Amino acid sequence: MNGAESLVRTLIKGGVEVCFANPGTSEMHFVGALDRVEGMRCVLGLFEGVCSGAADGYYRMTDRPASTLLHLGPGLANAAANLHNAKKAGSGIVNIVGEHALHHIQYDTPLTADIEGIARPFSHWVKTSPTSKTVADDGALAIQAARVAPGQIATLILPADTAWGDAIGVADTPDTPPPQGPQKEAVVAAAKALMQGKSAMLFLGGRALRARGLELAGKIAAKTGCRIQAAGGTARIERGAGRVATLRLHFVIETAQEQLKGTTQMVLVGAKPPAAFFAYPGKPSLLTPDGCTTTMLCPVEGDPIAALDALAAELGALNEKPAGVVQAGRPERPTGKFTLDGLGQALGATLPEGAIVVDESVTTGRGFFPFSAGAPPHDWLNNMGGSIGFGTPCAVGAAVACPNRKVIAMIGDGSAMYTIQSLWTMAREGLDICVMIFSNRSYNILYSQLASVGVDNPGPRAIDMLTLGRPTIDFATMAKSLGVPSVQVHDLAELTTQLTNAMSQRGPYLIDVVM
Amino acid sequence: MNGAESLVRTLIKGGVEVCFANPGTSEMHFVGALDRVEGMRCVLGLFEGVCSGAADGYYRMTDRPASTLLHLGPGLANAAANLHNAKKAGSGIVNIVGEHALHHIQYDTPLTADIEGIARPFSHWVKTSPTSKTVADDGALAIQAARVAPGQIATLILPADTAWGDAIGVADTPDTPPPQGPQKEAVVAAAKALMQGKSAMLFLGGRALRARGLELAGKIAAKTGCRIQAAGGTARIERGAGRVATLRLHFVIETAQEQLKGTTQMVLVGAKPPAAFFAYPGKPSLLTPDGCTTTMLCPVEGDPIAALDALAAELGALNEKPAGVVQAGRPERPTGKFTLDGLGQALGATLPEGAIVVDESVTTGRGFFPFSAGAPPHDWLNNMGGSIGFGTPCAVGAAVACPNRKVIAMIGDGSAMYTIQSLWTMAREGLDICVMIFSNRSYNILYSQLASVGVDNPGPRAIDMLTLGRPTIDFATMAKSLGVPSVQVHDLAELTTQLTNAMSQRGPYLIDVVM
Repeated sequence: MNGAESLVRTLIKGGVEVCFANPGTSEMHFVGALDRVEGMRCVLGLFEGVCSGAADGYYRMTDRPASTLLHLGPGLANAAANLHNAKKAGSGIVNIVGEHALHHIQYDTPLTADIEGIARPFSHWVKTSPTSKTVADDGALAIQAARVAPGQIATLILPADTAWGDAIGVADTPDTPPPQGPQKEAVVAAAKALMQGKSAMLFLGGRALRARGLELAGKIAAKTGCRIQAAGGTARIERGAGRVATLRLHFVIETAQEQLKGTTQMVLVGAKPPAAFFAYPGKPSLLTPDGCTTTMLCPVEGDPIAALDALAAELGALNEKPAGVVQAGRPERPTGKFTLDGLGQALGATLPEGAIVVDESVTTGRGFFPFSAGAPPHDWLNNMGGSIGFGTPCAVGAAVACPNRKVIAMIGDGSAMYTIQSLWTMAREGLDICVMIFSNRSYNILYSQLASVGVDNPGPRAIDMLTLGRPTIDFATMAKSLGVPSVQVHDLAELTTQLTNAMSQRGPYLIDVVM
Repeated sequence: MNGAESLVRTLIKGGVEVCFANPGTSEMHFVGALDRVEGMRCVLGLFEGVCSGAADGYYRMTDRPASTLLHLGPGLANAAANLHNAKKAGSGIVNIVGEHALHHIQYDTPLTADIEGIARPFSHWVKTSPTSKTVADDGALAIQAARVAPGQIATLILPADTAWGDAIGVADTPDTPPPQGPQKEAVVAAAKALMQGKSAMLFLGGRALRARGLELAGKIAAKTGCRIQAAGGTARIERGAGRVATLRLHFVIETAQEQLKGTTQMVLVGAKPPAAFFAYPGKPSLLTPDGCTTTMLCPVEGDPIAALDALAAELGALNEKPAGVVQAGRPERPTGKFTLDGLGQALGATLPEGAIVVDESVTTGRGFFPFSAGAPPHDWLNNMGGSIGFGTPCAVGAAVACPNRKVIAMIGDGSAMYTIQSLWTMAREGLDICVMIFSNRSYNILYSQLASVGVDNPGPRAIDMLTLGRPTIDFATMAKSLGVPSVQVHDLAELTTQLTNAMSQRGPYLIDVVM
């Protein structure tokens, strides 16, 4: 058994069962080992950002790390933007990055680079495994690191000679220390803060937004009258009929401030204090209202469900009927020209039970939540790191994780182009994903941002930098070129019909919503 | 004048006249300034790797840095693989990377990242400009750094408040110290080594491969009988009828060793000692023959033309008629099924004068050089960093740099998918580029690499990781979806006809060579 095989066996033994891969020469021993060992599903991406984004989506839906297989420094660099998004989402990933044989690095050949240096800004844990005897143990440490709550990026660098040399054996993955449980003082302080009633707010992030977390929050709200607010991004929120509903904190500062207005006590659960996405001249970064007292019940790296449970017990709320539970109900099927509300209605009218919505709709989808609040239970995944190109890869990973659930990827046309290669992987793996592209032919968000940051009267060169319509991109045709069936739709009735069709079939499908 | 405008004016004053851009919110002031200032051509890419690869191609053809405009850490990360390639090619680039306003960074919002840490492995020079008063000076220092021979990557990080605050004025770019000139001792030693005649070799890299460098090498060879050998990668080689010809050092170790065989004295000019691209079990990394003495006439960061000039003078060779000059002559127009030689003939039969060939054909094009040696004078640009996805972006930059020359991009289908977004920029800018995709439906290079690294009897899972044919990618259709006219060809006669057509027209065109 060589080092590569000892690593593959260690990964599988440690519960890492999927590898999103874009290998090259230096990873050929790892690839070769995949044939000798059962238990690792290998999914090829044509660009490394597909692999890292898919691993992010996979973790969000399974709470278990997948691996990626990347080709030296540049392969890791191509994966980095979606590793950034995954890191911000608290997703655990084990990256395996090939490297030259150690004796070869001194010659500074074309692919030689500072791989550890490239990895560090995007990883919680980085190690180059120096020998084929140590790589199994190092692989086990990487898995352990990736499992640290809520999930961490572990990058194991695998020199070619570490891969091809003789191994000792397979390693067992050590237990990961569990996240810190509820702290009595924090629970008491939070309970006291929430007794302020509707001027108090539970501000929820991370796993607090899973169904059980929201249910507990609903019980606490029923008992205390406090409000519930989700953070701006939700790595995964469980919502729909029968669940406690909450809106996300809005991207636009003034709207977010309106949502938080009147709050005098804010209790943070799995979330940082609310802050603006960007800074703007003369506007605040921190959005907590003036004079509001903030209590940290559970940090991002804690166990928010346990914390909410302890808080509900402290308040005697465990047997309350949760406030804010949504009744089943869908909007009418919309017709007519595209409107943002109409798009939200089309989704709400067609969303199937168990759907996984991956939302990179940027400006288009900000207002979609109310229209799907009463749809059958589903998950909703947001971009957590702000690096566009997250959506279609994340959908790949979610679909691999949950083969019996429909994935709906809502993608702005600007976002879609960063990682368009994902469509090919969807076709190759027959993944059950409906991709909606919102083709407004612009980086639409930047129009509003020009004014917000104080750029007045932008001229033609500036406007041209935000415009995607010269030439227009034909996403339906592009999808076909990559093996994904597709259609273009021009009004809400067509869209709703196509969504209904897509939901009733399996396999990848792309709907180009020409706005 | 705000900081962004002072930076734009400084760049233009410093001779940076093109910006390959993929901006976001934090770069809106820079974008806004482009409208108030004449002199900067702004070229939009839909993915940052297009921008950095284009800046690489632009530098190779102009010896002047372009700028890129990138959106915070993830935008820089997306550009990084082609920055790696540019760094290895010795191309100068000024990266402008947006950052949050400095007071905003503490809130760790979605796009917050360690931008300097991301930049460092890919840059020779990195600085965050702390205030709008300093950014003009910092921009000038970045230009100065980018110009250090043979060309460096300079990354200037531009916080939003640095961009929007008041500036003092425009800065002048300080002179860059010239590269070290020829060293007398090295010249004398090299002259002595080359007097060994045909067992001696001039090993050329970097700008030694420009026409004047090759002419001087030809004079030296005429005088001494030494051989001339180009390094494995050529950032830019000037070749064709009337020029001194040389082959590149081959990727396959055994072939490269054959090329170097019998060499007892090797004189390096703008090149490092020859080394294998990858390490393989039981094979050497350094390819210099046993017992061969190496003399460094001019390091990579020196002035190889001046060094060759001094060497020719030392040898009394300046008035020699260069050896190895190629007479004009083209291969017959090939017909029949595709063969690798036939593809080389098709190119050689149709290459127009002044063409710029961007070569990312990987396995397909390794043997093309002899067939185009007698074609009209042209340039040939190779991937220098081994990170695939270099070719179509580099072609964009070369076409922007040389609007009156035909660019021919030869791209493997595996390579093409990394930065396929470049096609859209070609269409948008009307760039005169003929893209040939060699569709062998695989990462073909990896098949040979499996055996070379000692992976015997690869099984179906391993083979599947090298195979792009499930589903096949229809590049002709994809090109149309991105606004580029295209055709699919199925034999050499069709290809040669289409190449002839492409050479007689202007604008982007894609030929999918279905092998």
